[in-house]
Amino acid sequence: MRGVIMYAPGDVRVEDREHPTILEPTDAIIRVSASCICGSDLWPYRGAEPVDHNPMGHEYVGVVTEIGHDVETVKVGDFVVGSFFASDNTCEICQAGYQSRCVHAELMGTIGTQAEFARIPLADGTLVATPGQPDADLIPSLLAASDVLGTGWFAAVAAEAGPGKTVAVVGDGAVGLLGILAARELGAERIIAMSRHADRQALAREFGATDIVEERGEEGVERIKELTDGMGAHSVIEAVGTQESMMQAIRATRPGGHVGYVGVSHDVSLDGLELFFSGIHLHGGPAPVRRFLPELIQLIWDRKIDPGQVFDLTLPLEDAAEGYKAMDERRATKVLLTL
Amino acid sequence: MRGVIMYAPGDVRVEDREHPTILEPTDAIIRVSASCICGSDLWPYRGAEPVDHNPMGHEYVGVVTEIGHDVETVKVGDFVVGSFFASDNTCEICQAGYQSRCVHAELMGTIGTQAEFARIPLADGTLVATPGQPDADLIPSLLAASDVLGTGWFAAVAAEAGPGKTVAVVGDGAVGLLGILAARELGAERIIAMSRHADRQALAREFGATDIVEERGEEGVERIKELTDGMGAHSVIEAVGTQESMMQAIRATRPGGHVGYVGVSHDVSLDGLELFFSGIHLHGGPAPVRRFLPELIQLIWDRKIDPGQVFDLTLPLEDAAEGYKAMDERRATKVLLTL
Repeated sequence: MRGVIMYAPGDVRVEDREHPTILEPTDAIIRVSASCICGSDLWPYRGAEPVDHNPMGHEYVGVVTEIGHDVETVKVGDFVVGSFFASDNTCEICQAGYQSRCVHAELMGTIGTQAEFARIPLADGTLVATPGQPDADLIPSLLAASDVLGTGWFAAVAAEAGPGKTVAVVGDGAVGLLGILAARELGAERIIAMSRHADRQALAREFGATDIVEERGEEGVERIKELTDGMGAHSVIEAVGTQESMMQAIRATRPGGHVGYVGVSHDVSLDGLELFFSGIHLHGGPAPVRRFLPELIQLIWDRKIDPGQVFDLTLPLEDAAEGYKAMDERRATKVLLTL
Repeated sequence: MRGVIMYAPGDVRVEDREHPTILEPTDAIIRVSASCICGSDLWPYRGAEPVDHNPMGHEYVGVVTEIGHDVETVKVGDFVVGSFFASDNTCEICQAGYQSRCVHAELMGTIGTQAEFARIPLADGTLVATPGQPDADLIPSLLAASDVLGTGWFAAVAAEAGPGKTVAVVGDGAVGLLGILAARELGAERIIAMSRHADRQALAREFGATDIVEERGEEGVERIKELTDGMGAHSVIEAVGTQESMMQAIRATRPGGHVGYVGVSHDVSLDGLELFFSGIHLHGGPAPVRRFLPELIQLIWDRKIDPGQVFDLTLPLEDAAEGYKAMDERRATKVLLTL
């Protein structure tokens, strides 16, 4: 089968890879219907994380082609959505809603779902079947649920976005944009998108942003304070992962407010004393997407949300290298790979 | 009147100070009935914070002797307890429960309550009158409510201690010990005190600790994990403020769990990536003691809790220097100053 391999930073190739097989009785094999390129895939692409002939991709939707002996909740032929962490969904950590830190968690990125087929460990706990075979136009949104929507949703939940709240969103990539959509769905009163790109501002508004702030860093923080009677936002979503974006998020939050951070941290260091006197709540990390999948799939199935709009470039899997390049050069927000 | 002045690190004196007067119509003057020395007073005493002829003390109970024109909720003769932050208790931040970050907050430490009298700004928002004149034996507990109990309580609330939860407490000073008491009152199932001092272990058990861990640092973390099926505690109270104690708290918490930190941070720096993958909730800062005062006063008044037990040395105000010395040398956990 064909699959993406990142040989080295900047060097992405589509090659013949071995067809996956059932290794554990809890595994399933899926034929991938669509995959995509994640903002986090750009870290190794740009040399900010080590990479050496790695299979790529951790977002996926597809059809089950084979199941292990112990798999009970999905069957061959089901159309399924899964998270980027495989999880048993039964351990105490999963039951508390933190499936990305399941005691048996496996990172799908090491398996590589930018490929024709993928082995899904712990299929019962990881995969959620859709109510039926989806219409083709729903596939981008279902694929978004696999990571970017689930991650933006978790960020909004972690930031305690909700009725009466002013929510600020740091980061206008796919996760930040879907954090806006999540904040709106959760009932936030006011949603401030921090973005200086006209196309992303437009999508932010479509997803529910009521205000746009173009300033960054300390100027951005000042603008958020001006918009909130000097106090800062109740809830801030951080969807970048740099020192600047984390400090922008923390400083834009009022005392007692909540920062939900989902940008994978890169060289971030938080000063204890500043954090102490900020009085904020800080919560985040790798999103437990599995917690939200049943609800998100239903919202998409019922056509109440359309998160698939974040994909602004669609390419066949064979052109994955061009997809990485387009995202690296910011010509695309999020690239969908068809199979 | 007499009051404590810290001339320089290690140099504490009791001197004649000017009698406080009403400066704002929202002020009250109280005759201090008892004050005490805080663990945080040891930072300047040890040279870890700048100090130069500063009035000292921010914990207090006393009797109102004078009120400004605008004061409505307390009257001359009332016995009152207040927080170490003066707050209006009406602004949006106060109403959300973060009175220590009130938009008009004033730090009582700059006023200095280790003195015969003290001016209390924003008296209506800051002071809570007791149901009547307290019996003498209640005064230590009411004084504890002013800071150490309120701070330990906030830490337990921030750590989401409650029914079914295993709570670990890092720090066996007065705040940590009262964090144990708070966790018990909040219904925690299991409370693990981290302490290597026999006298503090005994008080920890009296306040509700079910387990004692003597190990510190990584060994302490491993012990907590052993006691929690490898997962870590649901809730961890951090009541020290050093790099070691913060990392001990973060690493002893399970994914999705909560750290409530109230130790004033000193040279603490948190690695963003470790925090990200920890998946914990982090909340803390200067405790909004005012939020909890009505409830804490009632529990003390009804003799349901006895937090005053943390005072293990009582001295007259004139001997404050000896009190600082005893706490610095760890001969005393918490020193009460009588007036």
